[in-house]
Amino acid sequence: MDLKAFIRDVPGFPQPGILFRDITPLLGNAEALRATLDELTGIAEAARPDCIVGIESRGFIFGVPLADRLGLPFVPVRKPGKLPAARMSVEYSLEYGESQLDIHADALTKGQRAFIVDDLLATGGTALAAAKLVELLDGVVAGFGFVVELEVLGGRERLRGYPVSALLTYA
Amino acid sequence: MDLKAFIRDVPGFPQPGILFRDITPLLGNAEALRATLDELTGIAEAARPDCIVGIESRGFIFGVPLADRLGLPFVPVRKPGKLPAARMSVEYSLEYGESQLDIHADALTKGQRAFIVDDLLATGGTALAAAKLVELLDGVVAGFGFVVELEVLGGRERLRGYPVSALLTYA
Repeated sequence: MDLKAFIRDVPGFPQPGILFRDITPLLGNAEALRATLDELTGIAEAARPDCIVGIESRGFIFGVPLADRLGLPFVPVRKPGKLPAARMSVEYSLEYGESQLDIHADALTKGQRAFIVDDLLATGGTALAAAKLVELLDGVVAGFGFVVELEVLGGRERLRGYPVSALLTYA
Repeated sequence: MDLKAFIRDVPGFPQPGILFRDITPLLGNAEALRATLDELTGIAEAARPDCIVGIESRGFIFGVPLADRLGLPFVPVRKPGKLPAARMSVEYSLEYGESQLDIHADALTKGQRAFIVDDLLATGGTALAAAKLVELLDGVVAGFGFVVELEVLGGRERLRGYPVSALLTYA
């Protein structure tokens, strides 16, 4: 199935000069969504994770079905001010500015293998922050799964040392 | 399975005087997550939807696995500035202030039955805004599914006329 046919290009979003890869047509087609989740599930399973970590908010879209299919816990990594209980934070730079990600301090146990899911690998800043959060809790990054990779932004290089998979790559 | 045992009470979040019902322990337990999704799937299926609408961002957590299990498309309803293509918006008031929700203008076709998912039914303002978005696109609200309902806030009354189900209710 040609999943790229379900990615919509939106020029000038969220800023002039940016070509946004919109996944909503893929979500809006049941067969394309299933095929995407089938591929991601295979990748995640091969990484032998103990849990799935999803990055807010589009990482939730792909991460929770993986957890459901694999019978694993799901751990949300969230933007500041969202997680209510004791938490750890990492600040990072992303394509359009500065941000921070949080994880609940009790979300992982020592040595737990986390497979980290997001929709998009761009500069890798967000993904690397999620990896740092996993490691702050003494977890192990089993790998990363993305739907779309924007190769020119060098995210894969920034995540070197970690297993990285993406279903759809754009130069 | 006593799913309430996996809801963590966090007093004073996000504001003093608020008792926050934290679903992350439920997500972090594979059996509890599966049982939650089993119950929600049964409710959604009975509503005979053509698609699942999830409200950003915790509605994504429960909505996408339902779409996956039922073989349906998933439509995200998002906060302002997130959806890149042509969209419709509804402004609404919520428990802690004012906000706006958006939907892509091409997300639904006329007469399509949408089952709307979110984690929490509080005042019902967010859910009602999502229903209005579905109806702005000439879709039909097949029903609402929530994990947690805070009964005292009257959301169910505000959603009268729509089928509303919640797995866990708190007075």
